Amino acid sequence: MPQLSQRTLNMQESPIRKLAPLASAAKQRGIKVYHLNIGQPDLPSPQEGLDALKHVTRTVLEYSPSQGFASYREKLVHYYAQYNINITPDDIIVTTGGSEAIFFSFLSTLNPGDEVIIPEPVYANYMTFAKSVGCVVRTITTKIEDGFSLPGIEEFEKLITPKTRAIMICNPNNPTGSVYSKQELMQLRDLVKKYDLYLFSDEVYREYVYTGTPYFSAMNLEGIDDNTILIDSVSKRYSECGIRIGAVVTRNAAVRGAIMKLCQARLSPPLLGQIVAEASLQAPASYFKHTYDEYVARRNVLVEGLNKIPGVYSPMPKGAFYTMAQLPVDDAEDFCKWCLTSFSYEGETLMMAPAAGFYVTPGAGKNQVRIAYVLKIEDMKRAVLLLEKALEAYGSRR
Amino acid sequence: MPQLSQRTLNMQESPIRKLAPLASAAKQRGIKVYHLNIGQPDLPSPQEGLDALKHVTRTVLEYSPSQGFASYREKLVHYYAQYNINITPDDIIVTTGGSEAIFFSFLSTLNPGDEVIIPEPVYANYMTFAKSVGCVVRTITTKIEDGFSLPGIEEFEKLITPKTRAIMICNPNNPTGSVYSKQELMQLRDLVKKYDLYLFSDEVYREYVYTGTPYFSAMNLEGIDDNTILIDSVSKRYSECGIRIGAVVTRNAAVRGAIMKLCQARLSPPLLGQIVAEASLQAPASYFKHTYDEYVARRNVLVEGLNKIPGVYSPMPKGAFYTMAQLPVDDAEDFCKWCLTSFSYEGETLMMAPAAGFYVTPGAGKNQVRIAYVLKIEDMKRAVLLLEKALEAYGSRR
Repeated sequence: MPQLSQRTLNMQESPIRKLAPLASAAKQRGIKVYHLNIGQPDLPSPQEGLDALKHVTRTVLEYSPSQGFASYREKLVHYYAQYNINITPDDIIVTTGGSEAIFFSFLSTLNPGDEVIIPEPVYANYMTFAKSVGCVVRTITTKIEDGFSLPGIEEFEKLITPKTRAIMICNPNNPTGSVYSKQELMQLRDLVKKYDLYLFSDEVYREYVYTGTPYFSAMNLEGIDDNTILIDSVSKRYSECGIRIGAVVTRNAAVRGAIMKLCQARLSPPLLGQIVAEASLQAPASYFKHTYDEYVARRNVLVEGLNKIPGVYSPMPKGAFYTMAQLPVDDAEDFCKWCLTSFSYEGETLMMAPAAGFYVTPGAGKNQVRIAYVLKIEDMKRAVLLLEKALEAYGSRR
Repeated sequence: MPQLSQRTLNMQESPIRKLAPLASAAKQRGIKVYHLNIGQPDLPSPQEGLDALKHVTRTVLEYSPSQGFASYREKLVHYYAQYNINITPDDIIVTTGGSEAIFFSFLSTLNPGDEVIIPEPVYANYMTFAKSVGCVVRTITTKIEDGFSLPGIEEFEKLITPKTRAIMICNPNNPTGSVYSKQELMQLRDLVKKYDLYLFSDEVYREYVYTGTPYFSAMNLEGIDDNTILIDSVSKRYSECGIRIGAVVTRNAAVRGAIMKLCQARLSPPLLGQIVAEASLQAPASYFKHTYDEYVARRNVLVEGLNKIPGVYSPMPKGAFYTMAQLPVDDAEDFCKWCLTSFSYEGETLMMAPAAGFYVTPGAGKNQVRIAYVLKIEDMKRAVLLLEKALEAYGSRR
């Protein structure tokens, strides 16, 4: 049998998805599973997007342009303008989800052996894509006791070597829920400029910032137009994870040219997803207000509930719809598996993502889990109760 | 400004898509352009697929499983059984088009520096994906005067080095329209077995074989179950290029495991595309009969017309919906550009794909073009007339 590639042998399974078979087995045993493991909101997609599907009159479901529909990119310009991100339709490349935006950005700018600095805990799929292109992720550890805020800029600078090519941030952050301040971003800007690095900024949660301050995007940082590459997606914004529509936005024409070579090879982003995404731009302000208010309420219920459980600690997330919580267990992965295989309370259990998979540093985050607050309030309350019951039972097992 | 990656600097633009701006400019001047450059059929998608969109009742357009919907994979098993390809739903991974199937197969099995042998002319996007993973494509040249049939197996064996990891075929072939016989495939099988290579077989045109003999798939080759990786897509089968639904099929569980790591990182294949593709499996036999008959008729009109133009030669394609034609010009790329920038006849012109981009050997195919017979008969006839007029004008220009 021929060998597998070294790069895939080096990859871990997704910490978010690898327990899926255990959850399936639990369901087959008749147990109800509360899914807090995945950023799949239960909130409806905008009606404008859903209606667009019913009105597709095409008889040939044909390729769209490799860069994405011009009409969609033109409307996105207005969307970004709301966040003071001033760009042209040419600056936008529509991608197959934020995932492709990340992967193609890495492929276009990073050589094997190049280093990328990313704060950890880190969205695990960044690591898979980094390994796919052969680059090395170096992490700055952010800490639960600091609410996962960024350490001083000198911590970043310490990691810079001749091989450092980029800094990557996720802001608002998955998995921690932290939001970086303008001040923090300005410091990163100075570093990016000083060493002429790329700055990859994944901002797919920009609608969900709970700090009361206006959102400040990496695209607003002056003097690094050729360095900044924005990663985006409609998945979370419109509860449309399945349509696989994202974007790369950059004012650097050479980077866009390189990414377009890859985009041409994959021919086109999804046609139907673009139709839905374009229509969803017409969603009224009330859609976002409702969604926003709902996440705030869920967050409050979750974090308050978590911190009432003996031995559990969660900081208050400032954005996105995740929190990283510390549990009174030695090995959160073992506990998460046990919840699916050996525990139920009144026929129910819960599924969380073990946090170790979000850390590069060996052993870090071993007693943490990522919890997505994507279920309705009653279900969030119930899930918190199930966690409490599970921890009790886990602590007193054998 | 930071540098681009070496891999993208090494990539060519898509020979199929790179003339697109010239075509847009021609259209803006009011000229009608006949698109023979791209494998985008004008035939309708199955009504069953189009109807499925109207009946989507979901209110959350959520992620689907990373491997694709189980219900879809189960139905695909029956589809493949019609071609005597006997597999289980577990053997199938649903991908974002055939493009992702190719890319993820390469990423999972090939290390930088590994060599892949591919007959040329070759579907150009294979080269982009090969460069993306850092592997080297070595080509066996097939010749227009032999109807692009495979050379003897000894020509393949000559290219094998310690770095050779795979052989890739496209059968029926894009861009040449050739179809490999069972005999040819059996010889490839022996070679694959002898050197323990992977055999990537791109069979997205299997519905379009005009030889009257039953289609023989690489998946039917015995004794190389762990070596064979089938690349598939519904794009051409159902005229659904835009929905971006493909598949990797292999009985090698380790390869599937490696590919699934990448699939988990990209989260899921398109939800809406899967709904359409699954419904399209219900298309009646009459749909395929109509489509098949139409391509045969178009092919005959095209090839007969081409061979009547002085100095033009096209072999008779045995499958798919392309032909490679030789033109009485020194540089077909220059001619194709000229057709879009400097020629029109009664306000019309045509767009073809220059063939040089499908060859790895420098200078090969310089006087050839790829023509896709994806337009209705009257338009194919008109396009042939335009080609004749363009060649006359091009020959007597200045």
